[in-house]
Amino acid sequence: MTVDDVEEALPKILEFNPDLLVLISPNPALPGPAKARKKFSSVRVPCVVISDAPGKRIKAELEEQGLGYLIITGDPLIGARREFLDPVEMAIFNSNIIKVLAITGAYRIVHQEIDQLVHSIKTGTSPHLPRLVIDVNRIQDSSDFNNPYARAKAMAAYELTEKIAEINLQACFVEKESSKYIPLVACAHEIAQAAARLAEEAREIEKYGDTLVRKPHSKEGKIKTKTKLMEPPVFEEKLEKNRSKNETL
Amino acid sequence: MTVDDVEEALPKILEFNPDLLVLISPNPALPGPAKARKKFSSVRVPCVVISDAPGKRIKAELEEQGLGYLIITGDPLIGARREFLDPVEMAIFNSNIIKVLAITGAYRIVHQEIDQLVHSIKTGTSPHLPRLVIDVNRIQDSSDFNNPYARAKAMAAYELTEKIAEINLQACFVEKESSKYIPLVACAHEIAQAAARLAEEAREIEKYGDTLVRKPHSKEGKIKTKTKLMEPPVFEEKLEKNRSKNETL
Amino acid sequence: MTVDDVEEALPKILEFNPDLLVLISPNPALPGPAKARKKFSSVRVPCVVISDAPGKRIKAELEEQGLGYLIITGDPLIGARREFLDPVEMAIFNSNIIKVLAITGAYRIVHQEIDQLVHSIKTGTSPHLPRLVIDVNRIQDSSDFNNPYARAKAMAAYELTEKIAEINLQACFVEKESSKYIPLVACAHEIAQAAARLAEEAREIEKYGDTLVRKPHSKEGKIKTKTKLMEPPVFEEKLEKNRSKNETL
Amino acid sequence: MTVDDVEEALPKILEFNPDLLVLISPNPALPGPAKARKKFSSVRVPCVVISDAPGKRIKAELEEQGLGYLIITGDPLIGARREFLDPVEMAIFNSNIIKVLAITGAYRIVHQEIDQLVHSIKTGTSPHLPRLVIDVNRIQDSSDFNNPYARAKAMAAYELTEKIAEINLQACFVEKESSKYIPLVACAHEIAQAAARLAEEAREIEKYGDTLVRKPHSKEGKIKTKTKLMEPPVFEEKLEKNRSKNETL
Amino acid sequence: MTVDDVEEALPKILEFNPDLLVLISPNPALPGPAKARKKFSSVRVPCVVISDAPGKRIKAELEEQGLGYLIITGDPLIGARREFLDPVEMAIFNSNIIKVLAITGAYRIVHQEIDQLVHSIKTGTSPHLPRLVIDVNRIQDSSDFNNPYARAKAMAAYELTEKIAEINLQACFVEKESSKYIPLVACAHEIAQAAARLAEEAREIEKYGDTLVRKPHSKEGKIKTKTKLMEPPVFEEKLEKNRSKNETL
Amino acid sequence: MTVDDVEEALPKILEFNPDLLVLISPNPALPGPAKARKKFSSVRVPCVVISDAPGKRIKAELEEQGLGYLIITGDPLIGARREFLDPVEMAIFNSNIIKVLAITGAYRIVHQEIDQLVHSIKTGTSPHLPRLVIDVNRIQDSSDFNNPYARAKAMAAYELTEKIAEINLQACFVEKESSKYIPLVACAHEIAQAAARLAEEAREIEKYGDTLVRKPHSKEGKIKTKTKLMEPPVFEEKLEKNRSKNETL
Repeated sequence: MTVDDVEEALPKILEFNPDLLVLISPNPALPGPAKARKKFSSVRVPCVVISDAPGKRIKAELEEQGLGYLIITGDPLIGARREFLDPVEMAIFNSNIIKVLAITGAYRIVHQEIDQLVHSIKTGTSPHLPRLVIDVNRIQDSSDFNNPYARAKAMAAYELTEKIAEINLQACFVEKESSKYIPLVACAHEIAQAAARLAEEAREIEKYGDTLVRKPHSKEGKIKTKTKLMEPPVFEEKLEKNRSKNETL
Repeated sequence: MTVDDVEEALPKILEFNPDLLVLISPNPALPGPAKARKKFSSVRVPCVVISDAPGKRIKAELEEQGLGYLIITGDPLIGARREFLDPVEMAIFNSNIIKVLAITGAYRIVHQEIDQLVHSIKTGTSPHLPRLVIDVNRIQDSSDFNNPYARAKAMAAYELTEKIAEINLQACFVEKESSKYIPLVACAHEIAQAAARLAEEAREIEKYGDTLVRKPHSKEGKIKTKTKLMEPPVFEEKLEKNRSKNETL
Repeated sequence: MTVDDVEEALPKILEFNPDLLVLISPNPALPGPAKARKKFSSVRVPCVVISDAPGKRIKAELEEQGLGYLIITGDPLIGARREFLDPVEMAIFNSNIIKVLAITGAYRIVHQEIDQLVHSIKTGTSPHLPRLVIDVNRIQDSSDFNNPYARAKAMAAYELTEKIAEINLQACFVEKESSKYIPLVACAHEIAQAAARLAEEAREIEKYGDTLVRKPHSKEGKIKTKTKLMEPPVFEEKLEKNRSKNETL
Repeated sequence: MTVDDVEEALPKILEFNPDLLVLISPNPALPGPAKARKKFSSVRVPCVVISDAPGKRIKAELEEQGLGYLIITGDPLIGARREFLDPVEMAIFNSNIIKVLAITGAYRIVHQEIDQLVHSIKTGTSPHLPRLVIDVNRIQDSSDFNNPYARAKAMAAYELTEKIAEINLQACFVEKESSKYIPLVACAHEIAQAAARLAEEAREIEKYGDTLVRKPHSKEGKIKTKTKLMEPPVFEEKLEKNRSKNETL
Repeated sequence: MTVDDVEEALPKILEFNPDLLVLISPNPALPGPAKARKKFSSVRVPCVVISDAPGKRIKAELEEQGLGYLIITGDPLIGARREFLDPVEMAIFNSNIIKVLAITGAYRIVHQEIDQLVHSIKTGTSPHLPRLVIDVNRIQDSSDFNNPYARAKAMAAYELTEKIAEINLQACFVEKESSKYIPLVACAHEIAQAAARLAEEAREIEKYGDTLVRKPHSKEGKIKTKTKLMEPPVFEEKLEKNRSKNETL
Repeated sequence: MTVDDVEEALPKILEFNPDLLVLISPNPALPGPAKARKKFSSVRVPCVVISDAPGKRIKAELEEQGLGYLIITGDPLIGARREFLDPVEMAIFNSNIIKVLAITGAYRIVHQEIDQLVHSIKTGTSPHLPRLVIDVNRIQDSSDFNNPYARAKAMAAYELTEKIAEINLQACFVEKESSKYIPLVACAHEIAQAAARLAEEAREIEKYGDTLVRKPHSKEGKIKTKTKLMEPPVFEEKLEKNRSKNETL
């Protein structure tokens, strides 16, 4: 996303009169995304920037621009060396990372925050812009896991993605010789596979106890929750009510 | 993608003066995609429709409209029942299918066909519109695997995705009771995980023999090929030349 | 089993004055089994035909002949191409299918139906001949699994065996070139292994919760049931009584 | 197989004028099988006794009776305690043992010995009765594995089946309390699963190198051999000839 | 540990005025350890001999010498053939055996016995010298597992270590040809890996149910117990009290 | 190892007139090990300090003291929180780390360096004290793996151990609440298991190709090398000679 790309595409996007703007960029400090941010901050539409670790460095600037942000530290740089820029390799890497971000709950946080924004826009209430760094600490706090080892394995998977980022950075920007950077990227991509496996293990644990939480939307777009596989999703309020009933018993 | 969506978005897309149009839809026979196809067939820009199994039914129509197509029979319907329309569940399902489509070579066929189109557009030669059904037969024929068991496992993974489609169709459109359709969707999503695992096994076999093929693009956008991990990618012509040299020896 | 085999063996079998006849054939419509069926239908002894998917086509005929049947759609054709008719390959294939049929509950249905027949013969009551197609639907309904994901994985394993049948049919009777049918059989046999693994996973889930159901026979041949590993099997009536006692509490 | 069973069934079997008799019994020293052996040794038809470890004790007697034998030490006693005499449990146990006996090569030895007998009967030459104890030593010597670690894993699987026999013997005939024998049988059956997994690993290694040996029969019943998956089976003599050709080069 | 080693090292050890002596030797009947035992039995300090299976043969002698003993039958001889006396191979073998001895509870028995000795020494009460053979029977009785299948898998792992000992003995002291002993050692070391995997499975089961028992020491060196991951360890007495409270309810 | 411990034990050790001193400490900067280092540096005996990551900070000091060092960055701090200081948990953690350090080659580097020291002491040549930081970079350079993916997986395992150190440091010294530090330690210990699995995978790859390198010592203590399982170890010089012979061909 160069500055030119932004200048060509932005006007057409704004012609749709959007109610909400979401800007996704691995590094929102680069000129293209910076241009887009500047533009977005001047439009009277709520805007959220979704980014990975490099986004942490411009948190203050994002807040000054009146933008929300969701910084996903577990969404690592791919091994962007020619040898690995094979579309198949890249899709597999992404498949592994998607699995980790989905199972650990990073995606859960993102969609719930966006859901809330959509809800305030629909109901005309003042939108609350999210400003979150989704690191392993937050993963731990907002996890849907019922089994504590499932949560520990999910956290482990998330930690591994941060290690991948570190290694790929070294491989892409520090090492110059292919004899050095090829093994590093290969190693980072193996970690991605191991992380996906750990995340899958975490989810299996919840299946084994029939405690896997799912949160589909109702027709009206509100989030429902279900735990036992064979039972229907219900609104969270109802869950709360049932719980307190049980406690009174 | 409703007809209204198409009518709103299409003009803006065409304002970019695209050189190539790619229309992706699980079922291009529905009104929205049909509208888009009609419009695209009247524009003098090469257009390719990417679709899954339902696309097979309108192959003749697509050819009449002068459109290319890539029909991926192994890209199955998700278990689109409320209970499973949890963003996390859906991302995991997609992660598994992405892994299968990448490793088995379905994505390889798609990007090579698009690459060729881009190449003819760049060089001003008449573009050859692809018209392919990517079924297990084609997967077998165009596979990059060097080990025949790796290929067999990849084919097995692809066959499983077709089974998923069949079961989810039953679960979404035939069974009415949740006591019937929930187990079916759960079952289909387990098969997706098993398919991803089989595909991964196939790829591991190639790693074990250091025969894994990668095909990154050169800076100019042409496809190079590499097999041994520590060796650089080369243009395919060069590969051919080396091979014939060896044969002359 | 040719017509001649049947004519040679049948008389000797009948000399044993059997109380119950069980005819097992993958395709009971073929001349040999047809001959046997004809003979059996004329003898005044209850008879059950056990068959796989091809048996479905002659259900009406079987009923006219007064025969019972148990058609196991998940008992697939082996990859009967010369290259794979190695006794070792065949035993491994059978090992995988046995595991799936046992764990998913197909064998449970078969032995319970035969048990009931034996019971009516012993007690002199009129035998109830089973007439069942054991497809994934019945597997779901009559499953002994306590965990719904275990059941879903078992169903997935059963669905895979139906896919194996489909592929081996193609490989054995449609494809002519070994370059085509060898990969197909290899692929089907990989699916058999994946199916066995899925079934095993299903059973492991029940072990993890100590909810695995076992149904040994009592000395008198009646079925008992046990769930917790360390507890003894009890007659089902007793189970029912205990359950209602608990409910009264 | 009681003495009465033998007396009822044997005459009918002999009415078929068999060319070859195969007597299978886990313990051929028991009265029933002993009766059958005695009868068989008086008939002028070649006869082979197939047995597991207990058969070793009557080797001398078998030789005196002029019978051949194949004693498979890796075919263990099942956990024959009421709690485990569930048909499903038993089928799973057998599935695991079948996999081990097939992959390790025990079945290969059995069918090759029987094949040779059939061959001499067909050609009217004097049959050579096999007299073999198939223990881990013989498994090692007659293995078809090309990779030495595959062979080691197969041997490991075979050793485990001997351990199973030992534990089940203890559980069935020594321990009296269910609190003692249930864990032992459960433990033995877990080892069966671990053994099947080790055997499967052994076979996978050969797939990874495309060196898996298959030995289908020709139409005339002679054994052919194939190694590379995509190549046709050939007669062993031809293999030998090719090998010596290569050596002359 | 030769006699000379013992004579050189023992005096220096005794200069520390130890309160407790622990002698670890795979075979305490050999001259070196025998010398050490003799010396230790004459010193007025409690002494425990830790040994593996060969120690069983001198139990009577150990008791006469007034020594305690802990004989761990599941701590097998390594494959001590030159080809495998690679430090890396040996460390991996040990890693596998450590995992089995830790998870199955063998180490638990050892440290609890030593803890008790330390406790009596600290409190000046007369020490109770342990005299235990830690075989699969004791593993079963003193297991911390809550799930009976976890216990069965742990017992299976322990049984395998005894098989390893048997095979390595054969490989190291009976077979003379490397063509015979290399496959045997390779096979024994594969079983070590399979045993570690089984043990790990056992522990995972407890994690899946959040019933994994941990027994850390308090600051004062007494053993506490915890089961649920997120809850603190408590003294066992407290556990007992809570349990009886619940029962009174 | 406190200062007092050092003062009590050191004199006794020196009474043995050692030829070589090896000081092992996770953090050699602490008072106890510092005392020992000071003493060792004044004795005219070659001394090597083996340490993990914290040792890096005193490299200069170690060199000034004339000591050698081997700093193993992949030997992480255990989760030293009361809840996890269960001897069983600790042994399992160590088992996983031992497997990683053995398979990745960290132990290989250590024993080869010590071997060389021993060799120079034996032959009376001036000993070369090793001064190495064994990080992933050195693991890569000195790896014995023949397959590049095996090496990449081994590197991945090693990287994970560094991540474990980082997390356990946080859990042990930064987080104060058990609700925070328990999940972190559980997560670190899961990564240890994942790392051991990755390392094991790396070794399996070499087995699959029969390219696993083993380096046993000869009777005289010199290192030999073997690769094919069934072939004997040879001295490296011989290997070199054979290689150059082949090249001359």
